[in-house]
Amino acid sequence: MAYSSKLIEQAITEVSKLPGIGKKSALRIVLHLLRQDPIETNLLAKGLEDLRENIKYCTVCYNISDDEVCGICSSHKRDDALICVVEDIRDVMAIENTEQYFGRYHVLGGIISPIDGIGPDELNIEALVRRVEENSDIKEIIVALPSTMEGDTTAFYLTKKLQDFDVKITGIARGVPVGSELEYTDEVTLGRSILNRTQL
Amino acid sequence: MAYSSKLIEQAITEVSKLPGIGKKSALRIVLHLLRQDPIETNLLAKGLEDLRENIKYCTVCYNISDDEVCGICSSHKRDDALICVVEDIRDVMAIENTEQYFGRYHVLGGIISPIDGIGPDELNIEALVRRVEENSDIKEIIVALPSTMEGDTTAFYLTKKLQDFDVKITGIARGVPVGSELEYTDEVTLGRSILNRTQL
Repeated sequence: MAYSSKLIEQAITEVSKLPGIGKKSALRIVLHLLRQDPIETNLLAKGLEDLRENIKYCTVCYNISDDEVCGICSSHKRDDALICVVEDIRDVMAIENTEQYFGRYHVLGGIISPIDGIGPDELNIEALVRRVEENSDIKEIIVALPSTMEGDTTAFYLTKKLQDFDVKITGIARGVPVGSELEYTDEVTLGRSILNRTQL
Repeated sequence: MAYSSKLIEQAITEVSKLPGIGKKSALRIVLHLLRQDPIETNLLAKGLEDLRENIKYCTVCYNISDDEVCGICSSHKRDDALICVVEDIRDVMAIENTEQYFGRYHVLGGIISPIDGIGPDELNIEALVRRVEENSDIKEIIVALPSTMEGDTTAFYLTKKLQDFDVKITGIARGVPVGSELEYTDEVTLGRSILNRTQL
């Protein structure tokens, strides 16, 4: 594509580096910004730079936070006995949206994935072990990782690491999603949902 | 969605204002930036701000440009006799990509659309009339506007405005796209393609 301006070319190159945005969408976004008030572009640019410069990670659970300790970790209303281990902050948001969980979190910052060169040392696993070690209030670790080979490997590694502590290690239930038809559920999920059936 | 940080909330709000990007994609983009080097975010923010602050519109054809007069208008290799009238700069890029057109352009900056409150005065139509008036080299105006009610209205308005000048006014050919099946082409297009058949 030939652009009549170096400035637009540069802007499109940068925007198209974002995930899920190709050259065409980038062009559309850039032209949209050109039609808007310049203040809109300033707000966007400032918002992103502010975020990148000032964002902090909670020193306890590694959730993103505006302060040293995030709102969930500093809240007195949450249950100290429960820690839910998740892959990234998106999962924290997803679980918070359920309004069904009132414990604390621990964000690993990824899962063990040799293919992507991510080993246990790249993740916040040591911090979790230390947290359990130093805090006798913790009674249960809920492993809420994706049900993939990498997720299962990470869960297994965590179980090994935490086996010497007096904490229960649990995993979230796998089964047929609410509102789903049985016939369209894959066999593994359906099989698990029968194995882990609950009393009604 | 509850965010644990005001900074991330603000960044997501700004990103989700962009066309084609919802809250979920915005979150994905923002988390992507957080994983990258801060320099990436700086480049993006700077690219957009630079563009918005320094972009110019060609004073002749209203294409975007880094200078007062764009590369196409200042080129000696283009045919002065031809002006192709388009809706916006995306159309200039599309036509340039064909490498089949060697005349000049005129970007209207939109089309007449009473529903969106865009009348002839909001568009660069007067400038086109002046261009034709002042430049006797111009022999043909090719109207390359979308084949919609708004496009046709604008084309009709342009024809009226330019009828007193000694220029030929033409429209781009409408017909069955190259590589398309006849049976899947709508009747209006197919009908036009028969009416405007060409000698082989």
